[in-house]
Amino acid sequence: MKQFSKFVLIAIIAIFLSCESEGELTIDGADQSTKIDDKVNELLSKMSIEEKVAQMRIFHATIGVKSDENGSLLLSDRVKEKLKLGIAGIKNPGEHISPLAAAKLNNELQKYIIDNNRWGIPALFVTESYNGVDAEGCTKFGRPLTSAASFNTDLVNRIWDVVGKEARLRGMHMCHSPEADIVRDPRFGRMSEAFGEDTYLTTQMVTNAIKGVQGDYEGLGAGTHIGAVAKHFAGYGQVLGGRNFAAVEISPRTLIDEIYPPFEAAVKDARTLGIMASHGDLNGIASHGNPDLLTSVLRDEWGFDGYLVSDSNDIARLFYFMKVAESPEAAALMGLEAGIDVDLYAEDSYALLPKMVEENPEIEKLIDQAVRRVLRTKYILGLFDNPYIDLDKVNKGVRAESSLALAKEADLESIILLKNDNQILPLNKNKPTKIALLGPLLSEHTKTAFESVAGSNITFMAAKGFSLTDEKKGVPSLLEKNPTAISKMINIARQSDLVVLYLGGDEHTAKEAYFNNALGDRATIEPVGQQNELVTKIKALGKPVIVVLKHRRTLSINTIAQQADAILDIWDLSEFGDESTAKIIFGEVSPSGKLPVTVPRSIGQFPFHYSQKEINYKKGYLFLEEGPLYPFGFGLSYTTFEYSDLSISNAELTPETEISVSVSITNTGSVKAKEIVQLYIKDEIRSVSPPNKELKGFKKIALDPGETKTVSFSVTPKMLEFTGKEMTKVLEEGDYTVMVGSSSIQGLSGTFRLNN
Amino acid sequence: MKQFSKFVLIAIIAIFLSCESEGELTIDGADQSTKIDDKVNELLSKMSIEEKVAQMRIFHATIGVKSDENGSLLLSDRVKEKLKLGIAGIKNPGEHISPLAAAKLNNELQKYIIDNNRWGIPALFVTESYNGVDAEGCTKFGRPLTSAASFNTDLVNRIWDVVGKEARLRGMHMCHSPEADIVRDPRFGRMSEAFGEDTYLTTQMVTNAIKGVQGDYEGLGAGTHIGAVAKHFAGYGQVLGGRNFAAVEISPRTLIDEIYPPFEAAVKDARTLGIMASHGDLNGIASHGNPDLLTSVLRDEWGFDGYLVSDSNDIARLFYFMKVAESPEAAALMGLEAGIDVDLYAEDSYALLPKMVEENPEIEKLIDQAVRRVLRTKYILGLFDNPYIDLDKVNKGVRAESSLALAKEADLESIILLKNDNQILPLNKNKPTKIALLGPLLSEHTKTAFESVAGSNITFMAAKGFSLTDEKKGVPSLLEKNPTAISKMINIARQSDLVVLYLGGDEHTAKEAYFNNALGDRATIEPVGQQNELVTKIKALGKPVIVVLKHRRTLSINTIAQQADAILDIWDLSEFGDESTAKIIFGEVSPSGKLPVTVPRSIGQFPFHYSQKEINYKKGYLFLEEGPLYPFGFGLSYTTFEYSDLSISNAELTPETEISVSVSITNTGSVKAKEIVQLYIKDEIRSVSPPNKELKGFKKIALDPGETKTVSFSVTPKMLEFTGKEMTKVLEEGDYTVMVGSSSIQGLSGTFRLNN
Repeated sequence: MKQFSKFVLIAIIAIFLSCESEGELTIDGADQSTKIDDKVNELLSKMSIEEKVAQMRIFHATIGVKSDENGSLLLSDRVKEKLKLGIAGIKNPGEHISPLAAAKLNNELQKYIIDNNRWGIPALFVTESYNGVDAEGCTKFGRPLTSAASFNTDLVNRIWDVVGKEARLRGMHMCHSPEADIVRDPRFGRMSEAFGEDTYLTTQMVTNAIKGVQGDYEGLGAGTHIGAVAKHFAGYGQVLGGRNFAAVEISPRTLIDEIYPPFEAAVKDARTLGIMASHGDLNGIASHGNPDLLTSVLRDEWGFDGYLVSDSNDIARLFYFMKVAESPEAAALMGLEAGIDVDLYAEDSYALLPKMVEENPEIEKLIDQAVRRVLRTKYILGLFDNPYIDLDKVNKGVRAESSLALAKEADLESIILLKNDNQILPLNKNKPTKIALLGPLLSEHTKTAFESVAGSNITFMAAKGFSLTDEKKGVPSLLEKNPTAISKMINIARQSDLVVLYLGGDEHTAKEAYFNNALGDRATIEPVGQQNELVTKIKALGKPVIVVLKHRRTLSINTIAQQADAILDIWDLSEFGDESTAKIIFGEVSPSGKLPVTVPRSIGQFPFHYSQKEINYKKGYLFLEEGPLYPFGFGLSYTTFEYSDLSISNAELTPETEISVSVSITNTGSVKAKEIVQLYIKDEIRSVSPPNKELKGFKKIALDPGETKTVSFSVTPKMLEFTGKEMTKVLEEGDYTVMVGSSSIQGLSGTFRLNN
Repeated sequence: MKQFSKFVLIAIIAIFLSCESEGELTIDGADQSTKIDDKVNELLSKMSIEEKVAQMRIFHATIGVKSDENGSLLLSDRVKEKLKLGIAGIKNPGEHISPLAAAKLNNELQKYIIDNNRWGIPALFVTESYNGVDAEGCTKFGRPLTSAASFNTDLVNRIWDVVGKEARLRGMHMCHSPEADIVRDPRFGRMSEAFGEDTYLTTQMVTNAIKGVQGDYEGLGAGTHIGAVAKHFAGYGQVLGGRNFAAVEISPRTLIDEIYPPFEAAVKDARTLGIMASHGDLNGIASHGNPDLLTSVLRDEWGFDGYLVSDSNDIARLFYFMKVAESPEAAALMGLEAGIDVDLYAEDSYALLPKMVEENPEIEKLIDQAVRRVLRTKYILGLFDNPYIDLDKVNKGVRAESSLALAKEADLESIILLKNDNQILPLNKNKPTKIALLGPLLSEHTKTAFESVAGSNITFMAAKGFSLTDEKKGVPSLLEKNPTAISKMINIARQSDLVVLYLGGDEHTAKEAYFNNALGDRATIEPVGQQNELVTKIKALGKPVIVVLKHRRTLSINTIAQQADAILDIWDLSEFGDESTAKIIFGEVSPSGKLPVTVPRSIGQFPFHYSQKEINYKKGYLFLEEGPLYPFGFGLSYTTFEYSDLSISNAELTPETEISVSVSITNTGSVKAKEIVQLYIKDEIRSVSPPNKELKGFKKIALDPGETKTVSFSVTPKMLEFTGKEMTKVLEEGDYTVMVGSSSIQGLSGTFRLNN
């Protein structure tokens, strides 16, 4: 008790001191929120309609925010004119200059904005993040889907913490990321921007990303992190045919049970500052014009009180692309009524609101509501009190040693070993070996990286051989087959003892498909070009072939899987990816990534996510094409793990209790390694046809050779809820099977019963 | 006026006479219906619960209804025991014996049933029809998808009229056909059992099929036709992955606007006696346990008062396969409460009802309701008054000359000419030519049929070369490549002037996938086996190659389309298919079929139906894979047609008016031919994202060389309705584009405006 008292005393002193120095930060969240609301309302009461609408628009820096390379601001007249009214935000100012120069630029830009609008309202500077801050000079991590393969939420939290800090240090305030979409169709060019096919895994990753990028929510005003924007709400990963901007056809129940959860958790658990709406439509209603989605579900049901932003030009697109509004004005009204606060980029949408208010004064209420949310976001981020970056901190903070080390650490946890015949991996650094590094996905750094890791006993030859795509005409296209390329590579391979083949897809074969006729969505997931031919001919030489699979969409790798002795699936790693791959190949670390998506045999198996209903495939396929090539959650190790002693704390669960499921895992091999222990639950019978099984927990553990650890998972009634026949969440009595294992298809099973 | 009076007089006499002889037939429909209800209620009041439940079950004849080949009845003891209580119906009695023998058998069987249940209730004998009555000795027509290619509703009506008559003549009363499903995924093994991808075309075909098979609804009691059962309600064609029994994910709006219409028309327009529920689930709710679907929509909204039958064993499957009911009893209750009257085949589902009533007397009301509907169906079909077939009529009626001629006529209207480079078709009978008939889809009759059509100047060689599948092990499997087959065929082709290549898929590569591991759904739509290699090598000989494409699912025919000089897409024709194909090849008739489905380049383009929303593909694909290989509604002719003078009667439409769209079509070639003139409408802007365009009318016309006809279509407000934001049908003001043309992508366009 004495110690406790002492702690309380120190805490009281701390509060007293902080009262002195920082005022409001000591009051609790609710009071702070009220104070902000008061300030916002006061400000709003003074603003003209034009000034209000300016707070509902973001423009892209490319329209006229320039600088020299040191970050000295150069504004076009067009932008100066715009900024007189203030602005909600600017996208990507300083993205192509160094962090320090960007910070300088953004300080000058912010000062210009504050000084040049009547009420001194600062602007939000907005970035994105797929593999680190989307700007020059920041740490480049692996892509979200790559990091999802780590099944390590702490790692993802720390990556996004770096993203938040590095972004804020260059003067950014909002991050139009992460993606909370569920990606199950690899034809979709953007699949690697999200965290994979599974709802639970994505939810864990998204909430950790948001908490990372935002840091401590209550402390956002301190200026060390930035606001997150979870996107794309909702169903963007479900676009028909995997085609950007396409319609989505989904049952309302699947939407609630499988697509909403990452967004709901982003709002309720991670307290994301922002949400972005989705391109396209959802069951016939354009997402940007859908008040049920954007207001009823997001705000009324989940309590989201942040900043809801359109995707690029999408409010205007309600008219000119989606064809659901009869005019630009009708489109603007549709977006406003649906609940979108901020119009991203469009010059002919919310820009029309001041004029529209003249004819329809009623809508000013909706405008006020949107402006309140934007101003509130700026207060939460501390921009009124603390709009500038301390330039002295920038270079110390960006690309810190710890951040670069984290990128490497994440790589090593994300690489997935799909195949390893005869334990050909890891390679032995001490055994003199000539290795041929070949293939179109080789980078210019691969050889050097491998040499630095392997040491002097190993010699390397390297040849890319051919490229997959050609950008010459401005529009990327597939290259014609190069008839001599493969024979040249065979000649190099002949001189080697072993071949490491870099195959997969380059950035043009899987990317956001936003330009007409220059697109990243594809109708096939076969490896493009001569890659299957290459692996087959190289393998025919009779030498061991290790395939490193680098790609941004799931590929159909039947030929590769048949020919290769080993496959390392690296997706798209950090800037240190070559080095990380070499470290895994030479056994510095055992691979510990697991597939965050199912690898099918062909696109014709779509849909193939592991959790789909059993009725979808129980009848099998003619000619035994059934089943995936590699299942969700699968990944090998350099050691072996034995699962034993599954134990369920109670055979009965009730709505008020929870039970614990535990299993022992032993490292039965000879090297230290990590294992991702996965918990799956299946509702054997339920009134709404049940999914096959669903991931409901995972834990990543490290085990020394011979070591055993016991891993426990809580099973709570909440995990068993689903949207019942009446479209409300229900918990149904009955038998459940629980499986704990090393993938979605391998593990120890037990049963329990839920009694209501 | 004098003639009219005479007619009236004759009519009055006729009515008087019929009053004398047949009593009730003269009263109007409503009174007749009331009389039937009275009889049904009287009967019901006397029946035991076991007798009632017997009227809710159909068993398959294979469990013990046998006969010798003359149709003398042999009943197993098991069946005799069952029949003591009466029975709703028996599936397929006598299916493998001649029509006359079947009629004899069914008379004896019916007599046994009537004599052996307390109330003398007759049974329904049930068949199906895909290409004619599914039984020995009946006329074999082309499959539904084949006949849909004719775009000739009268033809389809006449085909199903023959089906109804031939079925009734062999003693059948119900036809568990036609399929009213929309089939857009060619991975689905049953796609050829339905009428294609389009809602309007399917609706026209389904209503004509039902009207054909039922004949005059009010006259069903006369015993010349049988009752139809439209299936599978609802969304069966939308099973995920094209996999039988799979879940369906569809927006409620698409369901209403695109999937329901053929069923709604089957009920309201064609007055189908029956509806069959669908395997699998619909947005999470098992179709067989879905009261919203089977009662609220089907009965309450559309007024269906007929017989709702389960698909095979599907009520029991709610428990053991769908896993949505906790026990067989729960499954039976679920089916009963959903509104299913008749349990097809299951021994452990509705059979449990008598016992269940003891514990839950409330459900007897539901049982009574179901039994009423079954008994009512039997009264409508005249089975109480007229249960037997007049054996003298059977052989005259089945396979009548006119029916066989109709099968041939239908073939000639259904064959689609997809390609005809250099007008290589038709071939000239007068020019001495050596033709090689080759390929795995050749039938044993092909050569004879071609010889009979071509006459003496043409000589034929024929070789199947290889088969696609092997049934040896009981389970069909793909055959290994036969290394010598192609070279043998090349040797034959070398001796010819021209090659006709029969390619496509056999019955095992596309069929109903109902046995585990012996299935007809596939993950790929590539032609199986060595077919692409065959066409490529044959073409390399430098001789003209005409491909005849025989198949039951849409195939990806890129290689064939590249290599062949001409392609005739025949799908699956009547028993006279070889002869019909030869007639088209030798120009006796110009082809006039059009594609009732879109032909894609690959399965990865799915979804590819022509009417999908423009936003689904407006952004195109990387590497220019966009667009179908052949569009919906496409088909060439031996002549050419010129469309001119599109005229719209009024630029403005109102909810109370209609407008007329007309166009002139001229046969600008040198042969007489038929053309299918198609009307498409596109809503340019609407509140719910609009389909690209939708077929709203078609007319098939015959034109002599040089002849011009003007074709007119009415455009009514009803055609423009869709399910709006509030999920009710709406009609929206705005601009519409109308196109009249020769396919979904070719025609003359105009615009009109709808003003509310």
